[in-house]
Amino acid sequence: MNNSEQWQSLFINVNLASMAEGSNEYGAIAHAALAISNGKIAWLGKMEQLPDYDKNSVNVIDGQGRWLTPGLIDCHTHLVYGGNRASEFEMRLQGKSYQEIASAGGGIVSTVTATRAASEQELFDSALPRLRSLHQQGVTTIEIKSGYGLDTVNEIKMLTVAGQLATSLPVTIKRTFLGAHALPNEYKGNSSGYIDVVCNEMIPKITAEKLADAVDVFCEGIGFNIVETEQVFKAAQQHNLSIKVHAEQLSNLGGTELAASYQALSSDHIEFLDEAGVVAMAKSGMTAVLLPGAFYFLRETQLPPIDLLRKHNVAMAVATDANPGTSPIHSIQLMLNMACTLFRLTPAEALAGVTRNGAKALGLAKQKGQLAVGFDADIAVWNISQPAELCYQYGVNPLAQLYCAGEQVI
Amino acid sequence: MNNSEQWQSLFINVNLASMAEGSNEYGAIAHAALAISNGKIAWLGKMEQLPDYDKNSVNVIDGQGRWLTPGLIDCHTHLVYGGNRASEFEMRLQGKSYQEIASAGGGIVSTVTATRAASEQELFDSALPRLRSLHQQGVTTIEIKSGYGLDTVNEIKMLTVAGQLATSLPVTIKRTFLGAHALPNEYKGNSSGYIDVVCNEMIPKITAEKLADAVDVFCEGIGFNIVETEQVFKAAQQHNLSIKVHAEQLSNLGGTELAASYQALSSDHIEFLDEAGVVAMAKSGMTAVLLPGAFYFLRETQLPPIDLLRKHNVAMAVATDANPGTSPIHSIQLMLNMACTLFRLTPAEALAGVTRNGAKALGLAKQKGQLAVGFDADIAVWNISQPAELCYQYGVNPLAQLYCAGEQVI
Ligand SMILES: [Zn+2]
Ligand SMILES: [Zn+2]
Repeated sequence: MNNSEQWQSLFINVNLASMAEGSNEYGAIAHAALAISNGKIAWLGKMEQLPDYDKNSVNVIDGQGRWLTPGLIDCHTHLVYGGNRASEFEMRLQGKSYQEIASAGGGIVSTVTATRAASEQELFDSALPRLRSLHQQGVTTIEIKSGYGLDTVNEIKMLTVAGQLATSLPVTIKRTFLGAHALPNEYKGNSSGYIDVVCNEMIPKITAEKLADAVDVFCEGIGFNIVETEQVFKAAQQHNLSIKVHAEQLSNLGGTELAASYQALSSDHIEFLDEAGVVAMAKSGMTAVLLPGAFYFLRETQLPPIDLLRKHNVAMAVATDANPGTSPIHSIQLMLNMACTLFRLTPAEALAGVTRNGAKALGLAKQKGQLAVGFDADIAVWNISQPAELCYQYGVNPLAQLYCAGEQVI
Repeated sequence: MNNSEQWQSLFINVNLASMAEGSNEYGAIAHAALAISNGKIAWLGKMEQLPDYDKNSVNVIDGQGRWLTPGLIDCHTHLVYGGNRASEFEMRLQGKSYQEIASAGGGIVSTVTATRAASEQELFDSALPRLRSLHQQGVTTIEIKSGYGLDTVNEIKMLTVAGQLATSLPVTIKRTFLGAHALPNEYKGNSSGYIDVVCNEMIPKITAEKLADAVDVFCEGIGFNIVETEQVFKAAQQHNLSIKVHAEQLSNLGGTELAASYQALSSDHIEFLDEAGVVAMAKSGMTAVLLPGAFYFLRETQLPPIDLLRKHNVAMAVATDANPGTSPIHSIQLMLNMACTLFRLTPAEALAGVTRNGAKALGLAKQKGQLAVGFDADIAVWNISQPAELCYQYGVNPLAQLYCAGEQVI
């Protein structure tokens, strides 16, 4: 385990919130050191246990008592989209009627129209500042969903752009195909026809072109029903794609239990999930992805079943759900505060939500989200005196440095 | 009015959200220009009405269609303090009892202890990043309160540090003496003794040393009662200091009506204010300062009487209330979103809250908070296509440039 002659970089005089499960909430190690070799974490432990190393060949970084956490993971976003919904937001606050807003082109339809109309370059140019903002807050891994194209060409365009973003910023990007996000206008009254295209045209094509790692469905009264959801899961399974689901956000349709029976990675939102659903998640090892930004922006009052998730040891991830309609909030640090303030997570739970459990929600539990030997050296360095500060205060960015695969990027 | 030979700088091809009251919500002027002379706004209007000017002597800035607003004003903060309350935040979320938290040194007492223990330099060093964050979000004027010293030496220390911050950042700072923030432990059971020191020792000394522009009182069951509040108001009046009040946040004690009878600048929080109080504010021309960050962080449910404030034409300001106990949220842009999302202000009302009405709450209505001829050239330049975007989206800072007194500072 200790091959210090291969170390490239070494943090000394740091505190680690390793986020490994175990003896204490943060997997904390005070007065610690951490070594990097070939982009992976090669050693970590107490300063006094630091083995000998060649001071001439290792890049030694004196952390001066700063805290290290795993690079943050935003495991649920819709970061690529055209246009924005500021006008709709304003009209609603001005007391305009649903009809007036709809006839002015409000709702998801307006984002679909704008996304279809946008070129790859335009989508890229509008998404990059959003990703950069998250990156500057410590995000090293992000999931980006499609779902505003709603036809084969435009879903592929969104996933292509999502992949291109990794060429501009050193962030690991996982892509999720969300063709079953909403019914496009041209399939009004024919959702089975649309699901047929999703399953038999889009998923095969996206698989062939390796454009997505997972498939997601919005299983809801205003989305797709449980039968349609299962059709999409089946197609995903046939193409060896991971499965995720937006479920139980506004009502309990059973989408989570269905997803559990397909060994899905995660069920996301889940404000209306009941204990049977939580038990199903626990049995299949699914992660619950909590999205406090959407809860805040929609002024929801039904809290996710946090206590049941704790009782049954379901891993809780936390993400931004960054999207133009229900969470135009591009801040993972604010989600840490909101997860505590609105959902009453402890700071340790919230931080696990954007590290260890965020990784689990993306199928990366063995590579990312923990400071552990063999894991990717994605590391955030913070100007804080205790981990809870990351959740408690907001607005002054405490990020001091950021490392991706062992390279300093901020 | 038009002395174009004296112009130093000129924005062309911009859109103005002048925030002047009048024909439209934002005082908006599309396809506009704005000229600066001697740190003041010298001219503004439509591009086609731009008079001749000497292109060799004027610094012309092509705004390329960007929007200009007045520099933002955060008219209610407690930005200078020692320590932080992350441990208390964490203990509460871990379900620790009030007793356990108190015996671990929680509550405002812990901030008083830390503030008293801190040197001027330490207070300065911890406050500066908070101010810088606000400044980078467009803030050009800020109010900073004392109130964690609670003795003469330490209140003066806080106000001194608040003033020193202006030497590091080009921000206009207004200081408010809030000695009557809480009863210090050494006066337990003797609030009249403490109020006596506030009125007869602190206020005279602070006035003599010109350390504050205004006096504020926390009039509340857990603060000071209405008789004590009036004593402080009287002392402030005798020393020609402006008056402000924290009132009706948790209950209706009548602090706002009392403040109105003393021609106070503002009453702040006012979740529990009734119509009589709103009418009193309207009659005396007071500004209502709304603090959605504290409402959010405390998970309050009682909304301020927004409709009554509208009905009686009381100016509504919006501020961060940045403080370690009830709003450790140092983001004016987030307050714009929260004012709309939580308080249902329109984007135009929210923006007026951090510009025109923020200025009014600080007695600066004739100098700041509007783009108008003769006003200070404190100007924020935004990468947005409509003003509502400043409220709708959050997390990607749209600030392109910032000018204070006509000089570009960002
Ligand atoms: Zn989503
Ligand atoms: Zn306050």
